[in-house]
Amino acid sequence: MSSSDAPSNATGGAGPVSARVRVRRHADRGRYDAATVEAILDAALICHVGVVEDGQPLVLPTGFGRAGRTLYLHGAVANRSLRLALEGVCVTVTLLDGLVLARSVFTHSMNYRSVVVRGRARPVTDPAEKLAALRAITEHLVPGRWAEVRTPSPTELAATAVIALDMEECSAKVRSGPPRDEAPDRSLPVWAGEVPLHLVAGSPRRDEHVSTGIAEPPSVAATRGRFAAPGGEAGGA
Amino acid sequence: MSSSDAPSNATGGAGPVSARVRVRRHADRGRYDAATVEAILDAALICHVGVVEDGQPLVLPTGFGRAGRTLYLHGAVANRSLRLALEGVCVTVTLLDGLVLARSVFTHSMNYRSVVVRGRARPVTDPAEKLAALRAITEHLVPGRWAEVRTPSPTELAATAVIALDMEECSAKVRSGPPRDEAPDRSLPVWAGEVPLHLVAGSPRRDEHVSTGIAEPPSVAATRGRFAAPGGEAGGA
Repeated sequence: MSSSDAPSNATGGAGPVSARVRVRRHADRGRYDAATVEAILDAALICHVGVVEDGQPLVLPTGFGRAGRTLYLHGAVANRSLRLALEGVCVTVTLLDGLVLARSVFTHSMNYRSVVVRGRARPVTDPAEKLAALRAITEHLVPGRWAEVRTPSPTELAATAVIALDMEECSAKVRSGPPRDEAPDRSLPVWAGEVPLHLVAGSPRRDEHVSTGIAEPPSVAATRGRFAAPGGEAGGA
Repeated sequence: MSSSDAPSNATGGAGPVSARVRVRRHADRGRYDAATVEAILDAALICHVGVVEDGQPLVLPTGFGRAGRTLYLHGAVANRSLRLALEGVCVTVTLLDGLVLARSVFTHSMNYRSVVVRGRARPVTDPAEKLAALRAITEHLVPGRWAEVRTPSPTELAATAVIALDMEECSAKVRSGPPRDEAPDRSLPVWAGEVPLHLVAGSPRRDEHVSTGIAEPPSVAATRGRFAAPGGEAGGA
């Protein structure tokens, strides 16, 4: 690929995408625009964080937050992944949208939206940025929740480590639509198609110690709406 | 922790769990029995595969299969993650079960079940094992599907790489239940509790080229049942 037709960088810059995050397999599924990358990140509840420990990979799931072109991760101050992420980290987010059932084993697939962000994290030590990062992480999980609850105490802040990863090297990969069987297979007498998958919220379970006089707050209503079952699409019948 | 009270190995062996996979943060959430680990793996549709590339971590999502105490991954023969996994790999699977809303920011959490498997993969070159591995991967995604569709041709088999990872070093981590606020916070006038999350299948979308005379097969019915909306729990209302 010549530099003139290289995909534009997700940062919006003029440079080509880093080879470290360019989509290689099924290159047509690569997406490099900031809007696509950020929408996938914002729709995901968790990420998988990869680091290198004693020369070997370690991948753990965790929550995260985003503020502009920066991702934030947090954990206990002793957290090894956060410490190792300063030497190099890969944050991967995946939304599974459905199963793709083809006529042949070989063409079975999944519909998904994923993002990979690579780089070296930096520790967040400035008190204002640290608090803003924790707010971004909380609001990412449950929008509106920060204003409803007790914010972190100095002791809690001191027990929490926060790191930041700039989204300089990132890409998205998206598959959607029906199976793509080769022409000779298309006449096989086999059902083929998609089974959509959705993350759906069940009825909230009130903690037993919460007074019945306390109403369900706006953040919970918003979460129900965010993860509502799609109309007429609930499976199982 | 002395060796006498070390958790038993998920292999069922008498030895202690490798320090590389022992759960450190929230150690009470660690699970090391084979039944728990295998149930989590079998319930998950995708894993996140971590490898080391030029000294830096790379994490990508993919499908997988399990046969006994072996995980199988596949991809195109040029797939870099599969090649790098021979030098060291971490396969992580996460099932997100719900959001845990506490009275304080600090105690917010998620309910989840996760598994981490670490080791070095080996290439699967024996034709019988390779075919069995592809069957395990297909059946993991959609049980019953293998018998319904065209199986791989010699050309397709030659284009596919398969690797195996023995589950010698693995552990699970599980959180469930309500928020665990400290006693002084429990009297705050704040709603707290859990919002359960479920992966739910929508109505299957038949590929436009499938003859209307072809009925939905058992594998699709089974998938609808596997990802059915829990009774009376659908959110959004």
